[in-house]
Amino acid sequence: MTRAVVLLSGGLDSSTALAWAVRRKGWTCHTLAFDYGQRHSIELEAASNVARSLGVFDHRVIRVDLRAIGGSALTDDVEVPKDRHKEAGIPITYVPARNLVFLSLAAGMAESVQARHIVIGANVVDYSGYPDCRPAFLKAFEQCARLGTKAGVEGTPLHIEAPLLHLHKHQIIRLGLELGLDYSLTRSCYDPLPNGMPCGRCDSCHFRMEGFRQAGATDPLPYPDQAGP
Amino acid sequence: MTRAVVLLSGGLDSSTALAWAVRRKGWTCHTLAFDYGQRHSIELEAASNVARSLGVFDHRVIRVDLRAIGGSALTDDVEVPKDRHKEAGIPITYVPARNLVFLSLAAGMAESVQARHIVIGANVVDYSGYPDCRPAFLKAFEQCARLGTKAGVEGTPLHIEAPLLHLHKHQIIRLGLELGLDYSLTRSCYDPLPNGMPCGRCDSCHFRMEGFRQAGATDPLPYPDQAGP
Repeated sequence: MTRAVVLLSGGLDSSTALAWAVRRKGWTCHTLAFDYGQRHSIELEAASNVARSLGVFDHRVIRVDLRAIGGSALTDDVEVPKDRHKEAGIPITYVPARNLVFLSLAAGMAESVQARHIVIGANVVDYSGYPDCRPAFLKAFEQCARLGTKAGVEGTPLHIEAPLLHLHKHQIIRLGLELGLDYSLTRSCYDPLPNGMPCGRCDSCHFRMEGFRQAGATDPLPYPDQAGP
Repeated sequence: MTRAVVLLSGGLDSSTALAWAVRRKGWTCHTLAFDYGQRHSIELEAASNVARSLGVFDHRVIRVDLRAIGGSALTDDVEVPKDRHKEAGIPITYVPARNLVFLSLAAGMAESVQARHIVIGANVVDYSGYPDCRPAFLKAFEQCARLGTKAGVEGTPLHIEAPLLHLHKHQIIRLGLELGLDYSLTRSCYDPLPNGMPCGRCDSCHFRMEGFRQAGATDPLPYPDQAGP
């Protein structure tokens, strides 16, 4: 039995990565979600629902207060940008060192449950502006985690698996659909409406809607009228 | 003005590292302590007292629930070992990936406040059994943090400073005394008595008491009668 720790936000990417780990690789999966002071907790419910639907071994939510660090529109009291998907550079929705923190906690968990793999839905195509989604970062983290954990020292080094790293959004969606993932359980929006449904206007909604279109599939989530306000 | 983020547990080592950063380097210091589910919170009070006594710019406590990960006598309901200082291998007081998690949060904080240095009181002499205190790990982390943060990408790479790395405990204590650190504010014990004072029997107390003896100095903390039960 091969164990894996899977970072699961409840979004499209991480849910697809989990489906890959469970259904393609056949790994026994321990999923980790984070209550990190994000402005809405809808994604925590989504993570729990996706984990249940894929029959993971264990799902845990870890509290880590990234608000105490500051510096992001996703945790601070700053407006999430809408309808501006083409700006260059690092987006203000970038949370400082988020993947570094999440991967570190996953490494601790992997050590604790004796998992050999950490699975992350990082993607360099849509998130090229996020330094902590880049292949060189993931490679460096793997090396660092091997040196900094008991498991690595004792000879069962961790592997960081990023199965979606080089896929376009429509390819990710096709993979998930092939694996029978129920996308109605996933949530991607940075700034959901009061009823929990996506805004249809933030970067994350934009990528998702475009991905379903290009995949020739229908997103099971309802979006508001695209005419906008 | 050079800014640094300093990991501060309130123990002897991290407090000395902070004194070094403030008084020897003259850096403007942002200290970080962690409420990570440790069995006692006396160290959080100590961190706050030490930070105040050294006049840091800002002191923050970040909650991160390492108990959700498990695997250590410091967070689980497992007895802390006493009077057995000579065992080989990785001690059960090792918390999986703790320094990796703490350094990652410090990297996020450094990015947020535009600090160029992260200071950690890691020590390879007394803690050779802890993989995340080794020089190769700290070097790998520095590389990883540079690749995974906006600051690194934009050309102001972080430096990890471990000024105590190769010092013996008595040398650390002499350094702190030279810098005017008040060791009565620091706490090192893994398993303090109900009145908050050190047990005098765990590994950490043992190293501290021996260090003061070898430094030819007096530990301002009171210890119980060494005859023991």
